[in-house]
Amino acid sequence: MPSSKLYKKGPLCQLFKIDYPIIQGGMVWVSGGKLAAAVSNAGGLGIIGAGSMKPDLLAHHLDKAQGLTNRPLAVNIPLLYSQVEEQIKVALDKGIKIFFTSAGTPKKYTPFLKEKGCVVVHVTSTPELAAKSEAAGVDAVVAEGFEAGGHNGRAELATLPLIPQVVDMVKIPVIAAGGIGDGRGIAAAFALGASGVQMGTRFLATQESSAHPKFKELVIHSRPEDTRLLLKKLVPVRLLKNAFYQQAMQLEEQGADVETLQKLLGKGRAKLGMLEGDLEEGELEVGQISGLVRDLPTVEVLMQRLVKEYDQATRSFE
Amino acid sequence: MPSSKLYKKGPLCQLFKIDYPIIQGGMVWVSGGKLAAAVSNAGGLGIIGAGSMKPDLLAHHLDKAQGLTNRPLAVNIPLLYSQVEEQIKVALDKGIKIFFTSAGTPKKYTPFLKEKGCVVVHVTSTPELAAKSEAAGVDAVVAEGFEAGGHNGRAELATLPLIPQVVDMVKIPVIAAGGIGDGRGIAAAFALGASGVQMGTRFLATQESSAHPKFKELVIHSRPEDTRLLLKKLVPVRLLKNAFYQQAMQLEEQGADVETLQKLLGKGRAKLGMLEGDLEEGELEVGQISGLVRDLPTVEVLMQRLVKEYDQATRSFE
Repeated sequence: MPSSKLYKKGPLCQLFKIDYPIIQGGMVWVSGGKLAAAVSNAGGLGIIGAGSMKPDLLAHHLDKAQGLTNRPLAVNIPLLYSQVEEQIKVALDKGIKIFFTSAGTPKKYTPFLKEKGCVVVHVTSTPELAAKSEAAGVDAVVAEGFEAGGHNGRAELATLPLIPQVVDMVKIPVIAAGGIGDGRGIAAAFALGASGVQMGTRFLATQESSAHPKFKELVIHSRPEDTRLLLKKLVPVRLLKNAFYQQAMQLEEQGADVETLQKLLGKGRAKLGMLEGDLEEGELEVGQISGLVRDLPTVEVLMQRLVKEYDQATRSFE
Repeated sequence: MPSSKLYKKGPLCQLFKIDYPIIQGGMVWVSGGKLAAAVSNAGGLGIIGAGSMKPDLLAHHLDKAQGLTNRPLAVNIPLLYSQVEEQIKVALDKGIKIFFTSAGTPKKYTPFLKEKGCVVVHVTSTPELAAKSEAAGVDAVVAEGFEAGGHNGRAELATLPLIPQVVDMVKIPVIAAGGIGDGRGIAAAFALGASGVQMGTRFLATQESSAHPKFKELVIHSRPEDTRLLLKKLVPVRLLKNAFYQQAMQLEEQGADVETLQKLLGKGRAKLGMLEGDLEEGELEVGQISGLVRDLPTVEVLMQRLVKEYDQATRSFE
């Protein structure tokens, strides 16, 4: 659809060499090679979420994705895990040229990656961190709001007030994330001054994501108020309502300390819920836009729809 | 500025008989007759916030406003206080024809007010409550997100994901509130399908609001992350950081119960902070957009700026 007004819109399309400024969020256990390749093939930017992958598994997903597309692919590397350097090495060895980093300081790896000729984007949740990322040399920032699924900033700034405040703070392009699930949200992001969007939950609910089928079904039947930002004393994370969520909420309301929450969380709950499909005891990382996500299209069908919705949403401004 | 694209845009301008679909939020201790009249004179809809007014004081503010403008004025009546019926009677006696109700069921007063020939708008925080409001016969809903200042819904839905989900749920016009402070936010609201916006914090920081001058100064120097939704076990309220906020946050993190929080809150803290200017011990109700609010213009100057910013923000969609 080169006739869409979203085609090649803004600086991100040139930066990433993509057709539409629509970026798929890196999601643990959900965004493997298959999903990333499908998004890139449809003209967006597909991201392999390395957060849940040991270096070997990351290499496997990179091979898979590169076997499915010749278009640009990116890797998201949360900087809070122990194997960051090995993950970066694997991605560089496989020829990845676009890195999204998150959950850590942008100072540590940005200079190294820029020296290797890579495009670097850092995920931020406040205007201040966006400015620090720009100073560290990144090419763009993701500004992600409170309504986003999964790990989240402590400032609790929602996307609508966050984006213009970040845009006013930096000169580099800003990618809006959190609470965007259709073309109306993409249009709103541009109105706020963003140059593109990153969407997680919407891409989770597609044929190509590696989320467990039962988890996908739960998402498309969830109510708008069924997610909550929890585990704030650990790393805040937005979760879909289930038995684990209820336990975490109850403990938090009672003022539980870090140790108690850590004990409840244990290990492997994200994998248990999102990949293995234990809908009660697993961690189900989902954003507030889930109430708008009502089907499980292929990525290609979804992308065509997003572009069409964007054109419709902006028609009233002509 | 009848040449602006925002002039008479959408169904709210006809419903309220106003020039621009910009509505000033009803704010306790902040939106008296002077502010409301200034907003209506500038082509928006001014609202007298009755939540902090006994019937006599409300009558006084209505007289004042009506002495300052011949344009439409509205009253916001939170349904959680004890003198609701007297407040409604006073407003009707003074000829008010537009009622914004909030913090209670829309079923109770909507039929009565509609019978009196009034326009009724209910403030909602979930798509479900918006649908119930429509069923109760209101003419429009405000859909207010988590980022809004002051009293807030329990679902914690942020404005960006909330608006399209409400728009899909009802046929009546939707007014977006929470996190909007400039023309970019207004454009974003329209992109999401809203028919107008309600802004609180931005109108708080004007010459005509009755907020204490020291409070206004604090708002325009606050950082983006300086507000927090607190007192969730009572009525959730978004407050600006100060000594009271720190105490409330600490108690909440320790799991304090309703009685303890009620005792901390006591009585009259909103008046103490916002009207009397005790910036440490008072409740300072402010939204997340405060980080974008950097000056104290007159309402007339602000409205002209908002309209111009809207035109700029939508130019890229032409």
